[in-house]
Amino acid sequence: MLKQPNLTINEQGHLCLGGVDVLTLAKKYGTPLYLLDEDMVRERMGLYVSAMKENFPAGSKPYYASKALCCRELCRWAKEEGMGLDVVSSGELYTALAAGFPAADICFHGNAKTEADIRYAIESGVGLIAADGEEELRRIDRLAGETGVRQDVLLRVTPGIDPHTFAAVNTGVIDVKFGVPIPTGQALDVTKTALALPHIALRGFHCHVGSQIFDADPFCLEADVMTAFLDAVRRETGYTAPVLDLGGGFAVAYEEDQRAPDCAAMIKKVAARLREQCARYEYPLPTVTLEPGRGVVAAAGITLYTVQNVKSVPGGACYVAVDGGMGDNPRYALYGARHSAVIADRAGEPQTERVTLAGRCCESGDLLGEDVPLQEAKAGDTLAVLVTGAYNYSMASHYNRVPRPPMAALRGGVDRLIVRGETLADVAAYDL
Amino acid sequence: MLKQPNLTINEQGHLCLGGVDVLTLAKKYGTPLYLLDEDMVRERMGLYVSAMKENFPAGSKPYYASKALCCRELCRWAKEEGMGLDVVSSGELYTALAAGFPAADICFHGNAKTEADIRYAIESGVGLIAADGEEELRRIDRLAGETGVRQDVLLRVTPGIDPHTFAAVNTGVIDVKFGVPIPTGQALDVTKTALALPHIALRGFHCHVGSQIFDADPFCLEADVMTAFLDAVRRETGYTAPVLDLGGGFAVAYEEDQRAPDCAAMIKKVAARLREQCARYEYPLPTVTLEPGRGVVAAAGITLYTVQNVKSVPGGACYVAVDGGMGDNPRYALYGARHSAVIADRAGEPQTERVTLAGRCCESGDLLGEDVPLQEAKAGDTLAVLVTGAYNYSMASHYNRVPRPPMAALRGGVDRLIVRGETLADVAAYDL
Repeated sequence: MLKQPNLTINEQGHLCLGGVDVLTLAKKYGTPLYLLDEDMVRERMGLYVSAMKENFPAGSKPYYASKALCCRELCRWAKEEGMGLDVVSSGELYTALAAGFPAADICFHGNAKTEADIRYAIESGVGLIAADGEEELRRIDRLAGETGVRQDVLLRVTPGIDPHTFAAVNTGVIDVKFGVPIPTGQALDVTKTALALPHIALRGFHCHVGSQIFDADPFCLEADVMTAFLDAVRRETGYTAPVLDLGGGFAVAYEEDQRAPDCAAMIKKVAARLREQCARYEYPLPTVTLEPGRGVVAAAGITLYTVQNVKSVPGGACYVAVDGGMGDNPRYALYGARHSAVIADRAGEPQTERVTLAGRCCESGDLLGEDVPLQEAKAGDTLAVLVTGAYNYSMASHYNRVPRPPMAALRGGVDRLIVRGETLADVAAYDL
Repeated sequence: MLKQPNLTINEQGHLCLGGVDVLTLAKKYGTPLYLLDEDMVRERMGLYVSAMKENFPAGSKPYYASKALCCRELCRWAKEEGMGLDVVSSGELYTALAAGFPAADICFHGNAKTEADIRYAIESGVGLIAADGEEELRRIDRLAGETGVRQDVLLRVTPGIDPHTFAAVNTGVIDVKFGVPIPTGQALDVTKTALALPHIALRGFHCHVGSQIFDADPFCLEADVMTAFLDAVRRETGYTAPVLDLGGGFAVAYEEDQRAPDCAAMIKKVAARLREQCARYEYPLPTVTLEPGRGVVAAAGITLYTVQNVKSVPGGACYVAVDGGMGDNPRYALYGARHSAVIADRAGEPQTERVTLAGRCCESGDLLGEDVPLQEAKAGDTLAVLVTGAYNYSMASHYNRVPRPPMAALRGGVDRLIVRGETLADVAAYDL
């Protein structure tokens, strides 16, 4: 089983999250059940906030990437812990505003915002909109003009850094749906457009290297490429950017052989590199923003299921089928993403089996994992899948018309619902 | 563009579905918008019903696999056209009952039904439950006993037919989460259990070969394997099965180089083979059920999007970004499944471009297709993605908190909403 300080085993051999026996929660709320260790989420948020405060200029802060897990409570916690908020849709913006999150601390991202999105963002007074290209810049300019404001904007650029090898390259990795490529000269051209548009106040640039980044090197390389670009922009246009958004991508450990990176140490290294590069170009140190999402919530979440049946196919796998699946966690179906699991009833026993975790959806590919180490399982057991705080609830579907599970949070050993579970009537509520 | 009799181009060069200019519908309902040609769905339903009536014994009929697209209207249409209904969850059963679908014509499937599912199915009086194995049989028996009924049940068996080569093999292809393998002898053993359980009335067997089957051969092979199994069961136990459920898997054409199979001709061939095999074993011809889902609805559906921006990366792809994506159609992200597309505004123009269709979700993998033939596109165009009637709405998520689109149906040239679109408030409605 994956080691985490907040995952313990009590005297009955039951799995505990944040000190609470998860079997009591499965009984109280039913399964499937998303659980979130609120103490851990807040601690992680605080950790990013303080690391950035210590290492970057005043005003620098992390924006919680709410796409990882968005609901009102998460927005409230982010506000209370001093984070900004990264939203990518009107739905996420609506949630944030409904939770009382200050619009000024919100950045609106996305590669294909609609006019309705942009208008809603401007009228709500979001602090920043990250424009994804020239067409969008012009649209923001027009809509800001109609609203009578000058909108603060970041321009999303593509630095051309290979997310696998973390080398700066000029081709291939700019071939993505996001951003304006730096290596082709397009980013510089679009920057000129941004500076010329009357209702656009260009505040700086946004970039993003990738996901599941385990050390500081890619961020340092990003700092290199971006400072070189900032310098080129200044030489060409005279413009100095006050803000640099280096995106997200902080890794989490999903399996036993992975080790979660020390994000404070990573941030320290990136800050040192940025200072070094800015000194080299004699460029004023910009305010820095980062956008951790997974790194904040993933490890704080687990999902509880009830084992429905266990089937061994001679010469094949042992199938442990549960009452959830790709509907509540599509990550294995989508990416082959591996999650650790444990039989919560006998968490202290050795994981002697290697099983296929089968979901309940009527589709062969609905699996939660293959070759997953597990205790011997039987129908009625409670299965906990670990590190499900990010991209599980947020990606959940109603496939097979299975209602989405509720989510309970644990704070100081006390549990409460933060997202209500859906009923059968809810699932059919839109049918006419 | 994919050729279909119900996809036409009017004098303005606009794409029409069922004779209706889709641009007027995009304007009326907004985008993204699911459209469903009700006339075509009903025609397809009728086609399966009459082909089965003509070729199989009295009582044989197709069960619409509602996982492909489930909402109240679809259940009503299935009822009116004389189909049974295949449901795989309490949510689908709830929908069917809410639509007035007769419980006696419903079969409840799934590899990991919960106790709540089984109890709901029994108490609703569903005609059949397809039990996935011995544990589930015993559970159904217990719950039926508690309710005081004897439940009609099919046993799901795994025939061991390779879905790719369509050869009967004894290993590998039985290594799936569904059913009890025939080749290992387990299916025969579990049949004996089923026959001995007091609250189980075994009505026969269910099997399923695969998806996107373009000719009758795999179904014929399935008939071979199943009749041999029926004969073996009879020899061993004296039991004769009145029902044989041969599952689904009828293919549809997603791309121009594919040709939708003639399902009536396929059914005729399978029926001939089954008669032949039953004669060989001197086995009374069973009532046959089939479960088309995709084959009924896929081709009747298209999805309309608005192009938000177009970006060409030098040396890379041309990205056409739209206001939907993996949230409303995860099939490319999940399976790499290809769909044809067309610019509805200029549907008559040649598709000279090869583009990457990018979704709006904040994720590089959120694409609707790559290397997709398309007219030259510009922001504001209406993009139609074709053959989206199956596994689009039914698999839709709220990823990025993007509301799920509405669905409108066309009947005799008249449009009406059949599924209401979600609002921003709907998306956050479960947050506490």
